Amino acid sequence: MMFDLSKKTKICIEKVKGVPGYVCRKIWKVGRDDPRRVIHAFKVGFSLTLVSLLYLLEPLFKGVGKNAIWAVMTVVVVLEFTAGATICKGLNRGFGTLLAASLAFLFELIAREYGQVFRAFLIGASVFLIGTATTFLRFFPRIKKNYDYGVLIFLLTFNLITVSSYRADDILKLAHGRISTIAIGCGVCILMSLFIFPNWSGEDLHYSTVSKIEGLAKAIEACVDKYFKDDETDIEIDETQEDPIYKNYKAVLDSKSTDETLAHHSSWEPRHSLHCYKFPGKQYVKVGAVLRHFGYSIVALHGSLQTEIRTPRSVRMLFKDPCIRLASEVTKTLNVLAASIRTRRHCSPEILTEHLQSALQDLNHALKSQPRLFLGPDGPNNTSKMLALVAATGRQRSESPLARKSTESPSFSKGTPTGAEKRVLRPTLSKLAITSLEFSEALPFAAFAALLVELVARLDIVIEEVEELGRVACFKEYKHENDVILDVPRPSREINITTPAGAE
Amino acid sequence: MMFDLSKKTKICIEKVKGVPGYVCRKIWKVGRDDPRRVIHAFKVGFSLTLVSLLYLLEPLFKGVGKNAIWAVMTVVVVLEFTAGATICKGLNRGFGTLLAASLAFLFELIAREYGQVFRAFLIGASVFLIGTATTFLRFFPRIKKNYDYGVLIFLLTFNLITVSSYRADDILKLAHGRISTIAIGCGVCILMSLFIFPNWSGEDLHYSTVSKIEGLAKAIEACVDKYFKDDETDIEIDETQEDPIYKNYKAVLDSKSTDETLAHHSSWEPRHSLHCYKFPGKQYVKVGAVLRHFGYSIVALHGSLQTEIRTPRSVRMLFKDPCIRLASEVTKTLNVLAASIRTRRHCSPEILTEHLQSALQDLNHALKSQPRLFLGPDGPNNTSKMLALVAATGRQRSESPLARKSTESPSFSKGTPTGAEKRVLRPTLSKLAITSLEFSEALPFAAFAALLVELVARLDIVIEEVEELGRVACFKEYKHENDVILDVPRPSREINITTPAGAE
Repeated sequence: MMFDLSKKTKICIEKVKGVPGYVCRKIWKVGRDDPRRVIHAFKVGFSLTLVSLLYLLEPLFKGVGKNAIWAVMTVVVVLEFTAGATICKGLNRGFGTLLAASLAFLFELIAREYGQVFRAFLIGASVFLIGTATTFLRFFPRIKKNYDYGVLIFLLTFNLITVSSYRADDILKLAHGRISTIAIGCGVCILMSLFIFPNWSGEDLHYSTVSKIEGLAKAIEACVDKYFKDDETDIEIDETQEDPIYKNYKAVLDSKSTDETLAHHSSWEPRHSLHCYKFPGKQYVKVGAVLRHFGYSIVALHGSLQTEIRTPRSVRMLFKDPCIRLASEVTKTLNVLAASIRTRRHCSPEILTEHLQSALQDLNHALKSQPRLFLGPDGPNNTSKMLALVAATGRQRSESPLARKSTESPSFSKGTPTGAEKRVLRPTLSKLAITSLEFSEALPFAAFAALLVELVARLDIVIEEVEELGRVACFKEYKHENDVILDVPRPSREINITTPAGAE
Repeated sequence: MMFDLSKKTKICIEKVKGVPGYVCRKIWKVGRDDPRRVIHAFKVGFSLTLVSLLYLLEPLFKGVGKNAIWAVMTVVVVLEFTAGATICKGLNRGFGTLLAASLAFLFELIAREYGQVFRAFLIGASVFLIGTATTFLRFFPRIKKNYDYGVLIFLLTFNLITVSSYRADDILKLAHGRISTIAIGCGVCILMSLFIFPNWSGEDLHYSTVSKIEGLAKAIEACVDKYFKDDETDIEIDETQEDPIYKNYKAVLDSKSTDETLAHHSSWEPRHSLHCYKFPGKQYVKVGAVLRHFGYSIVALHGSLQTEIRTPRSVRMLFKDPCIRLASEVTKTLNVLAASIRTRRHCSPEILTEHLQSALQDLNHALKSQPRLFLGPDGPNNTSKMLALVAATGRQRSESPLARKSTESPSFSKGTPTGAEKRVLRPTLSKLAITSLEFSEALPFAAFAALLVELVARLDIVIEEVEELGRVACFKEYKHENDVILDVPRPSREINITTPAGAE
């Protein structure tokens, strides 16, 4: 028992000893993931010290007095990670305070005429009314989205001044002190966020859009590679190792709220380009929505890798080339789009559709001419089926029935053929060696192909929206170079740009 | 010119006259969408008036003094729509203040020994250090998720007390006043949110899960109905009127952040059932994730209604019954799951899979036995193709080539048949009247069928997670009744339950 206890203590001590290391690793990881976080932390510390000087330094304190504490509070609350968020909060706080002070002053003017008791009643009533109305106002979607913080501050300040006015002599001085110190706090915050290592929501949105498109491209590539590379033995491993593909597109699926927040904050940021009047946050949100829709198709494509019924490898191999070509064209187009956004330069409209069109036609052609889909009139015994592949392109090879997967569910073996069909067709089949393929086996491949084709259809919408983005965001003219540049998604001069990071 | 101006003024006046009506309609709509909003607004107004009494009533004011204003501020900031959110914020605020006050007091003890200048330096340094460290701490995902507000309040209070201490004589009194009034404010908020018309995040999450499942069920039904009901002429209208289906599943797609927020807040709520220890928010989030994944398949299914290449109506009709049956089984199962969650009662495990299994086998059977997919060796002229449908079930009818869609892309007409094939097969075809169907035309239907089958596969995961939810949330025992109850998703006794509303 004694031994047991000491052992437990030892384990406990070991664990506690491990904590500092763990914490250090964690801190290092959070900082390394996005070094701007460290800079932002120092910015907040510095700003706080700066406004604290209002209180600590004698001459400054004489100017603002005890209200200096409001400046400190403002900095704590308003200084956010990106410039847009800070400006949004700062202006909301500023105008909310101003509006509330005006209204409170008006109430005070009315209440001043009456006696102490009636005044108390009036203050209570106004607090109730304004509190109820303001809270209800916050449920309006548009106000909630844009001015929620401002409304909150309005309510806060109004109550603060109205209630205080009951005991304070000079309400004007109270309001003035609060407003001026909050203005100082907001000013410090906005200056810090705009001029010292600024982080722009617009930039975050821009680069997160680029990385989302690249992620989708990678996901498609990985999906198609896996579909055609798979040996039959891989099936079990597949189901556990879905991460590499999922990882690439998952950021797109749940990007709605992040996108909208970034776009909203970016709408408060001053333009940071001489070319364009305003940052087109809304268009980025639209691109994000289209990408999300594109992503849903990839989810379905990914899902078709994991279906129970699998198309035989030999059949898949028959369509491998056109499918891989189509997928690589889609991937290439996505990378071109990503590069176009990244470099803020229009991309050539012809090249986007030219190769894609021909790849699509290739696949159509392959689907049309190569495989002869024939559901032979089989009896209840499946093993007598014949799978002979004739590739019209010249590589005529036929595979033995053994090559087919034998993991079919029993429900598949219920055909209703007539004897007559059997007798007439069998010789024809053997003579012509037509590709025989069960529809239920072709199903997963058909779904895969159809989803690929649909990806192209949706890619068209993505291209449209990205081109619209190019117009709205005043991208640079397309520079006509030889085609080589379009195969290189990331021009080397862009490498030194900071990687896009998680919002706020 | 003059006339023009007066006309413009008139229009302007008309517009302004329309504003009150618009505002009233808007207010009415926001209130009617969720009447709890009106109640919440009144609750806030009432609470504010209550804490204002601390300031307005002489005996109370003597007790707490000017610090009463902190109680008002706390109510403004802490009182949220749901009980969970209020408790989360209140406790965060309370503990943040307490911790900050303790730390500030410690600093004060150290700083007290030194002279005024060194003290100012020490305060400035501590503000900088704590400010930087705390801000960095807020980037840790776990802290950001659970304690962000608490950390913010910690920083706020620490700065407030530390900086104030430089000029204030009795820092202990300052801290005590702030802590006690904040405690009063938090107490009022928590009491109001717990006992007066409480809104539970857990309930919101519960009912939003139910309505999401029902929405998915409706979307599947609508998709399949549309796919099989469509006349060829409807195609154009379809593309503009995608709303009814989209409306049903869109809530699921972007539900991640809402779900997580509700689950987080619900984790702060006291249990509201005698059966179970804790509200299983995490399991609801898991169900939400599974539903989202299920929803992606529906998006793909919906997408397959809008593809360019359409399977001929006659072929679709051939598979109509098994597909509709499978879809209706999926729908029914989803409704059973929704009803199970709604009534907090386990659902019979056999019934969930029994019908579904047989519907799936029906479809498999239909796919296997009914259609004979045959890509006839066509020459460059497509019109000579024959489409004769033999349904093995008895309804033997053949359609003329005119019934087929003629909107095929030119790329489809490039076959590479040999003359020999042509000669041998043509008579056989006409004799047997085998269903001839281009693979590229069967493609969209195959995709549709494959997606339906995949829906069933994913439904299995949904069932699993809902059953797990039933276990974790201690649902009532499954009551064995006759099958009729399972066809009625909403038992009449449940109708008076409030509809689930958007979170906060």
